[in-house]
Amino acid sequence: MVADRGDGMTVGDGAATTGLLDGRRTAADGPARPVAAVSETGSAAVRRPLSPASDAVRLWPGFWAARVAANAERSLAAGLARMTAAGTLENLELAARTAHHGPYHGKLPFLDTDVFKWLEAVCWHLQTADSPEWLERAEEVIALVGRAQQPDGYINSYVTVVRGGERWADLPSGHELYCAGHLIQAGIAHRRATGRETLFDIARRFADLIVAEFGEGGRRVGYCGHPEVETALVELYRETGERAYLDLAGRFIDLRGEGLLGDRPFGRRYFQDLRPVRETHVMHGHAVRALYLATGVADLYLETGEAELLDVLRDQWDDLVRGKTYITGGTGARHRDEALGDAFELPADQAYTETCAAIALMQWAWRMQLATGESQYADMFERVLYNGFLAGVSLDAERFFYVNPLQVRPDSTLGPAGRREWFTCACCPPNVMRTFASLHHYFATSDETGLQVHQYAPGSIRSELGGVDVETGYPFDGRVRIEVPVDCAGEWTLSLRIPAWARGQASLSIDGRAVEIGTTDYVRLTRAWAGGEVLELDFPMEPRLTLADPRVDDARGCVAVERGPLVYCAEQVDQEAELDGVQLSGAAREGDMIEIGGALFPTVVLDGVVRPARSKSKLKSKSKLKEGDAEAAWPYRTLGAEQAQHEGERTTVTTIPYFAWANREFGAMRVWLPHDSAH
Amino acid sequence: MVADRGDGMTVGDGAATTGLLDGRRTAADGPARPVAAVSETGSAAVRRPLSPASDAVRLWPGFWAARVAANAERSLAAGLARMTAAGTLENLELAARTAHHGPYHGKLPFLDTDVFKWLEAVCWHLQTADSPEWLERAEEVIALVGRAQQPDGYINSYVTVVRGGERWADLPSGHELYCAGHLIQAGIAHRRATGRETLFDIARRFADLIVAEFGEGGRRVGYCGHPEVETALVELYRETGERAYLDLAGRFIDLRGEGLLGDRPFGRRYFQDLRPVRETHVMHGHAVRALYLATGVADLYLETGEAELLDVLRDQWDDLVRGKTYITGGTGARHRDEALGDAFELPADQAYTETCAAIALMQWAWRMQLATGESQYADMFERVLYNGFLAGVSLDAERFFYVNPLQVRPDSTLGPAGRREWFTCACCPPNVMRTFASLHHYFATSDETGLQVHQYAPGSIRSELGGVDVETGYPFDGRVRIEVPVDCAGEWTLSLRIPAWARGQASLSIDGRAVEIGTTDYVRLTRAWAGGEVLELDFPMEPRLTLADPRVDDARGCVAVERGPLVYCAEQVDQEAELDGVQLSGAAREGDMIEIGGALFPTVVLDGVVRPARSKSKLKSKSKLKEGDAEAAWPYRTLGAEQAQHEGERTTVTTIPYFAWANREFGAMRVWLPHDSAH
Repeated sequence: MVADRGDGMTVGDGAATTGLLDGRRTAADGPARPVAAVSETGSAAVRRPLSPASDAVRLWPGFWAARVAANAERSLAAGLARMTAAGTLENLELAARTAHHGPYHGKLPFLDTDVFKWLEAVCWHLQTADSPEWLERAEEVIALVGRAQQPDGYINSYVTVVRGGERWADLPSGHELYCAGHLIQAGIAHRRATGRETLFDIARRFADLIVAEFGEGGRRVGYCGHPEVETALVELYRETGERAYLDLAGRFIDLRGEGLLGDRPFGRRYFQDLRPVRETHVMHGHAVRALYLATGVADLYLETGEAELLDVLRDQWDDLVRGKTYITGGTGARHRDEALGDAFELPADQAYTETCAAIALMQWAWRMQLATGESQYADMFERVLYNGFLAGVSLDAERFFYVNPLQVRPDSTLGPAGRREWFTCACCPPNVMRTFASLHHYFATSDETGLQVHQYAPGSIRSELGGVDVETGYPFDGRVRIEVPVDCAGEWTLSLRIPAWARGQASLSIDGRAVEIGTTDYVRLTRAWAGGEVLELDFPMEPRLTLADPRVDDARGCVAVERGPLVYCAEQVDQEAELDGVQLSGAAREGDMIEIGGALFPTVVLDGVVRPARSKSKLKSKSKLKEGDAEAAWPYRTLGAEQAQHEGERTTVTTIPYFAWANREFGAMRVWLPHDSAH
Repeated sequence: MVADRGDGMTVGDGAATTGLLDGRRTAADGPARPVAAVSETGSAAVRRPLSPASDAVRLWPGFWAARVAANAERSLAAGLARMTAAGTLENLELAARTAHHGPYHGKLPFLDTDVFKWLEAVCWHLQTADSPEWLERAEEVIALVGRAQQPDGYINSYVTVVRGGERWADLPSGHELYCAGHLIQAGIAHRRATGRETLFDIARRFADLIVAEFGEGGRRVGYCGHPEVETALVELYRETGERAYLDLAGRFIDLRGEGLLGDRPFGRRYFQDLRPVRETHVMHGHAVRALYLATGVADLYLETGEAELLDVLRDQWDDLVRGKTYITGGTGARHRDEALGDAFELPADQAYTETCAAIALMQWAWRMQLATGESQYADMFERVLYNGFLAGVSLDAERFFYVNPLQVRPDSTLGPAGRREWFTCACCPPNVMRTFASLHHYFATSDETGLQVHQYAPGSIRSELGGVDVETGYPFDGRVRIEVPVDCAGEWTLSLRIPAWARGQASLSIDGRAVEIGTTDYVRLTRAWAGGEVLELDFPMEPRLTLADPRVDDARGCVAVERGPLVYCAEQVDQEAELDGVQLSGAAREGDMIEIGGALFPTVVLDGVVRPARSKSKLKSKSKLKEGDAEAAWPYRTLGAEQAQHEGERTTVTTIPYFAWANREFGAMRVWLPHDSAH
């Protein structure tokens, strides 16, 4: 059942801490490292990331290792090539030679972030891989960033080149602080991964300038139209212990909602600037902005422990989950202003569901998990990871989706007919890259009692108190073999997440003896581990048919297929009948394995009939049918005028994992499939 | 049953042809007057508008007279006030004083068309109403337009003021020819309505300049990003007999599709510039552009009789009707690029369905009716007229919709929370005004055999060969009383349209004797009319429940209520239960009359149940429910895990005519209502 055991590459199995890295090493943490959790001042985080991260989780060959390897081997190089071709790197050169003005490449003010996110991705890759080539490439680009930095620490190639250096002139749309946020995150990644200070120092100098400008008593009062710097500043505080960064993040969050961004065409809601954060109990406006802001607010909570922030984040989360999240974990229902949309406004075809929004939701979910320890956040992380996020990149890791619909109509004109190598607004691809490169950081946490495993992948997991080795064909195979290695002997608690979709149906044995786990969300096993114990988790992998709330209008009368953590979809290329003309009935069953992009995936098959073409009105058949007769074509008919006919030619529909769609001939696709029992 | 017999005003019952109008009168035609139909060169039009239009159709008090009166009494004045407040008129003053540059009011390059369309509306109003005040107002604005005209005939305040007079520099987006088209239409209306030449001469001078620039052998080869000038130029040919205008319209249409507009962000499809018109068998891109272009092509066909044009128009029409038209007759599924969308991409909540698109479809349908005589085009005209178009203006005629969704979710953020007095882009309101002011022109046609009545309203209809007087409470009452007046005695054919929704169920009597009409679409009565004959048509007014093609995903499992020509909708303000939580079953029935905006409308009532709140997972109830538990909120559930429950508290849902929505408290609204029998 394990489909793509990968190519033998062992991610994380390198000598990343050997002499290649000449700088001093920090704790080698991952992307988010709450410190209040381990401080004496009271803990807002009930769980914490594993540390040092470079050793904590090592992926062995399997589903994720193969994808992470493809990211490292192909996406990173492709990203560098595309940024070079697009002139994104050249823009930094233009900013470096300040006497030279233009021509700037591209019209968007945030193209620097492509470079910063790509650098962050390379750094996380370097944390686990021994790659002199990538280290050298990174240093070259970092040197370029350094040259683009102005004497006082400011960096933004667009402002320097296009705007003649006029800074902070357009906080609503200029994205300067947003760009700074990504620079800070890249700088932290570089330091944590390599121990070097170069990019970190560049970023910190800019951060200090921003503190001077925007901090308490600074010259400016405002905040960025696109949240992102908030989460970055909290992490910079974590990395440095410098309170000013945390305070500035707090100040941006405190000020937001005062309407300082003005009334723009899309309205204050677009910027999450309608009312103060602490009075905002719904998620609204531009999806990625809303989710990055929530991520920053969660970071602020993790360091300050301010209960009001967690309360409002819970409300926002519930609002998002209740009616603004697709079954894929995608968010953002509207193309128009890239907005989340109203509750239950979740069109399948017009879904925007930007790849960056999936990533942002994973970031927020991770922090909520740290803050509360509740399974729902790890459940959502898993849903987004395997579906909404993973669909954003091709199996060969070289082409990307910006928009991730749940339905493509035949000959669709709604988006590009397939994945693309790059975009004019290329925020998504490097965001995917940094997420893959740091993905293993999100699979487990620790607390004072032991280790919590949230996501299942082959590999070794080590925390201070305990550790496990995992073998599994997850997400295709429901069996997970977990061994406690001898070097992790001792008394500690092993917590294993039972995904919501498996709860009450999963089973566990320890050394062959069944253990009753009921309907728990985390199996907690506290014992004196001798080492050598073998635990076997078994998750039910029977395909499930899933209904949506009737208020999700596009999904009414339909089912979605889920199998394990995966949402499935039907692509036209796999069907005998025209996909949009099929009406399903009955249960789903396992189908044959299917090869897509060199890997094998389990299919799920459903039975159905081809809906007969709409019979023409009986009245009409008596009269002369005229050329171009609209009545025959009119897609609405009176109830009762014809029998409901679901008795057409029998057919089957084959579904594949949603994340694997659009890797072959591009055509019609559906997640929601009309089904007789769906009501 | 007749709800709003109006205020006693008799539209068209004035002395419009008396001495008030000092100019010479033309034939006083309406907005579209094919001439090939009455020429000896072969007829492309099988029917023609009644002429002289000022006498042909006079509306008596009733449904349309009241709306037309409200348009004249309130919309026209409101339009003038809004244009004054917005600076739209001042912009023409700025263009007139060429030494003076700015500040221009507004950022859009086509604001002049607000003035031109408003002028056209005032002129059509003057055709049937004796109003010295409006005549004077019109002349003042016409004088202003004249002052804004450059010495060589050019007019465009935006180009003159903002672009420093640089003409034709941005054909894709500059809208200069589009503006010219509306000026030409206003000039023709002024001449036909008042017999005066002032605005007509202004328009013709500009048209001559355009012929010199863009005609065969002119300095420029190109066409406008927004079609509109094509239909106007054909009408100018009709008015003048000057072939150059027809040729230029043909040239614009011939060139279109050569890609001269370039590759813009929304793509060549947006501009209908993907391929030549004669090779375009689908409707695509920006809805209003697509429909105005089709209207112009239909005009070209009507004058040239080129069979290939009619063939392609039929294909385009069928494509539009088959999957790109809402049940309201609205078109344009996408907010993003105001586009028609793919076949069956017809979301109810995200529907764009611009009011101007409804008007454009009426214009196209009218010309297709003239070209073919087929009932389907008059059927569509009726559908749009009573639903998609009429919903675009409030009952008090002072507030407008730009976007006309078929569903509003609770606390929707998708559009403004109600109608607006004016818009930054105010194309729709004056478009509504000119349509109302000329509406009676579209109710009947003539041919060499007699008179065809397409739309039923109280009033008198006279053609050269015959005439009728009509009394009816249509669209609420299905009885139509038609009398042949004594002065119309003679042998001629009276054709009466049987709407598609009534076909096979309508009945007719003549002088009390039933006449078998079968399932015909036009009852054709050829006889020697003595005068005094009374015909009684009876259309079935029982509410109908209508299903959509399953590929209209938003409407799956739902019904729409229709009654006569009216589509109904449910507004939250009329419901006991939360609208989105109701599941209907059973038949629709007549409800009480309801008063909205001072008029009474028949309601239609359906029975249903309030869907119980989703029961929480049985598993969940055994475990501790955590604060902020997402599982309870997650809007997707496994099929079979719970019984389908449509057995909640009984309730009823009251529906009202769709055109009357959003005239009270603004809230949730639905056209498509979930119904047990809808499959």
